[in-house]
Amino acid sequence: MSAAPEAAALADDAGRELAMRIFDGVAALSPDREGVSRPAFSDKETEILEHLAALAVDEGLSIGWDAGSNLWIALPEDADAPGASVVGSHVDSVPMGGNFDGLAGVAAGLVCLIRARRAGRRFARPVQVLAMRGEESAWFGPCYNASKALTGVLSAAEIDSPHKGDGRPMGAHMTDIGIDMDRVRAGEPLLPEGRMRDYLELHIEQGPLLIEKGLSVAAVSAIRGNFRHRAVRCIGEAGHSGAVPRAYRHDPVLAMADLLSRLDESWLAILQQGGDLVLTAGMVNTDPERSAMSRIADEVTFSLDVRSQDTEVLDNMRTLLRDEIAEVERARGVRFELGDEVAVAPGAMAADRVSALQDAMSGLGLDPFVMPSGGGHDAAIFAQSGIPSAMLFVRNRNGSHNPNEAMEIDDFLVAVAVIDAYLSKGAP
Amino acid sequence: MSAAPEAAALADDAGRELAMRIFDGVAALSPDREGVSRPAFSDKETEILEHLAALAVDEGLSIGWDAGSNLWIALPEDADAPGASVVGSHVDSVPMGGNFDGLAGVAAGLVCLIRARRAGRRFARPVQVLAMRGEESAWFGPCYNASKALTGVLSAAEIDSPHKGDGRPMGAHMTDIGIDMDRVRAGEPLLPEGRMRDYLELHIEQGPLLIEKGLSVAAVSAIRGNFRHRAVRCIGEAGHSGAVPRAYRHDPVLAMADLLSRLDESWLAILQQGGDLVLTAGMVNTDPERSAMSRIADEVTFSLDVRSQDTEVLDNMRTLLRDEIAEVERARGVRFELGDEVAVAPGAMAADRVSALQDAMSGLGLDPFVMPSGGGHDAAIFAQSGIPSAMLFVRNRNGSHNPNEAMEIDDFLVAVAVIDAYLSKGAP
Repeated sequence: MSAAPEAAALADDAGRELAMRIFDGVAALSPDREGVSRPAFSDKETEILEHLAALAVDEGLSIGWDAGSNLWIALPEDADAPGASVVGSHVDSVPMGGNFDGLAGVAAGLVCLIRARRAGRRFARPVQVLAMRGEESAWFGPCYNASKALTGVLSAAEIDSPHKGDGRPMGAHMTDIGIDMDRVRAGEPLLPEGRMRDYLELHIEQGPLLIEKGLSVAAVSAIRGNFRHRAVRCIGEAGHSGAVPRAYRHDPVLAMADLLSRLDESWLAILQQGGDLVLTAGMVNTDPERSAMSRIADEVTFSLDVRSQDTEVLDNMRTLLRDEIAEVERARGVRFELGDEVAVAPGAMAADRVSALQDAMSGLGLDPFVMPSGGGHDAAIFAQSGIPSAMLFVRNRNGSHNPNEAMEIDDFLVAVAVIDAYLSKGAP
Repeated sequence: MSAAPEAAALADDAGRELAMRIFDGVAALSPDREGVSRPAFSDKETEILEHLAALAVDEGLSIGWDAGSNLWIALPEDADAPGASVVGSHVDSVPMGGNFDGLAGVAAGLVCLIRARRAGRRFARPVQVLAMRGEESAWFGPCYNASKALTGVLSAAEIDSPHKGDGRPMGAHMTDIGIDMDRVRAGEPLLPEGRMRDYLELHIEQGPLLIEKGLSVAAVSAIRGNFRHRAVRCIGEAGHSGAVPRAYRHDPVLAMADLLSRLDESWLAILQQGGDLVLTAGMVNTDPERSAMSRIADEVTFSLDVRSQDTEVLDNMRTLLRDEIAEVERARGVRFELGDEVAVAPGAMAADRVSALQDAMSGLGLDPFVMPSGGGHDAAIFAQSGIPSAMLFVRNRNGSHNPNEAMEIDDFLVAVAVIDAYLSKGAP
């Protein structure tokens, strides 16, 4: 199914005008040398939330603020309803990022509410749009900070993380914008009990799958968890490139190549068996001071990032990594030091919500395509806290976290139509 | 055969004292923060040659200087004899290098001459010891510069190479120490026709083979040639580490790992078929500015250094490299750019001289072990100019070009005994 017919059928001029007004208005508030910059827990972020609040009020919607200084928007008749279906995302961005990562999820909910308000419609259940802060790790290191604070899981180490610019801890920046950090430090969820019935987040796809498949949207099956090693060291023995016979070498570069090729082979085998996995060694470096063309390196350092939506696959890969390392060490007389592992559990999406999204897609004549999310999102935090969660991806060229993000507004409006149908029918 | 009995039989106190006096005297003239520094075509180099000349004259030997400002030493009765068997090497070192790389070859010839003079002996044919300059590439880039000038093959590009410290061209430094650069630039060999009958160079082994085999010395079968690429680029496509499925990746790091693993497999196969080959990727780097743990690299750069004593093996590897690159490019949607190739032909040692060295070794009860040289040496330049050349390696721990070179004086004296026997019997 190609994108053009989908988009043509579901996008209209009024929708386009409204979406462009939201996206352009926020972009105009947050320009940088390239792209946009919307720092986490900053006055700029507050300004953007207030801009969105004013826009919502202009359209006759109700707004409110939670204890985490996040913005909530609803139809006036749903303003105080408990157990709302929440459609949300974050408004902060990475430095010099794109305009759509985060903002698109808030805008989607807002467009649904404005259209319903204009048409005098209501949804099957009360709907709240949640515009959060502080999702991006680029500013302090930790990520999903607003949803963590809302669910009471923001750790002391995270709160104390220094800002990458001014060095002040995240907690101080959160205090500045009015958050009571004593409650956050105490692990008290800032979200009132029973406020959220379930959670739905639209996000631009951060990979090329929808582009490649010619689809506008996909339901997300799960958010991939990961385990990562920032700096795996392979330690061998330096030597003259011409003078050391192969049998006496301890070449860490060929050992790393061997290990990565073995992992790559296992990756392929796991995919062929239907497993979900991605594996990346994004940084590879020999020491520029000590390495030379005519010298066997003494060591090489590389990163490893392994992700799957399936905890069992991650556990198997963790074991496989150690087994393959042991074999390469034996065969090549080198030593690997994995260093610290940082791990995040997969975020399971609620199966009934995923099915409901697929039903909404099919109902609109769309391919009910389902795929995992490779990046992490606030939805994983809500899911882990027991709130049934789901995500919808929108086709996007050039990945995210860069100024070249390229979501088509017509694809966005297809996604809005899916969310509208999902909310109108009512989540399970 | 272990080293200890060899050394015990062939090293004596007088030999040890003489060798230590030569090595310690030169080291005392050229200390650096670590190890020794003897810059190519420098006043320091001249000072060392003059020190060796004075030592030779003290022992009753004759000395002379050639048009390349290199030192020649002989028994007085052989001083002006044409067609000498030349025993030589260089006295310059890399910055903060070891004391033995180069100097050991000059010292070996000098010890032979002094012992013969002291004993009133002569060799089968006239012998000249040649102490050269400017062999190390560390100072200007090009290497074997004295032997190239002697044989008329030093190129204009090499002569114009700037000093890595002061930026002045090598030619200016050569002029400073009295070399007529017009002759060198004209490609006129500075070595008088018929001066050298053949050439023998002792050098410390730059790899671990003699250590591993428990042997003091080896005859060299050939000097490995090479082809090298300083910066092979593998160009892929950046992407989110979690969000791009394997089928849509163009990961240059895994492509590089694949290529290196393929080359490594071929290397093993060539060795198993009796071929000579070493292969090194000593420098590997993703761009620190653009790479991240959670990002598929857009490209990776690595060096390749391929060496063999056999031109055919080098040619086959050159073809194999291109074939494997084409396969990896097809399989992984990446592109390799090999960049410039720098190649050096293997330096064939004269088979009859190698046999004569082996005979001398056997005659002294030594294992007549033969091995290739991985590093390049002046001997390759003389061999390429048609002068029958040979080399003898001495066991040495910790490689060369560093302050930790560790040749045992007793091993050195075993090598001197081999050279003495070789010269006494007369080269073929």
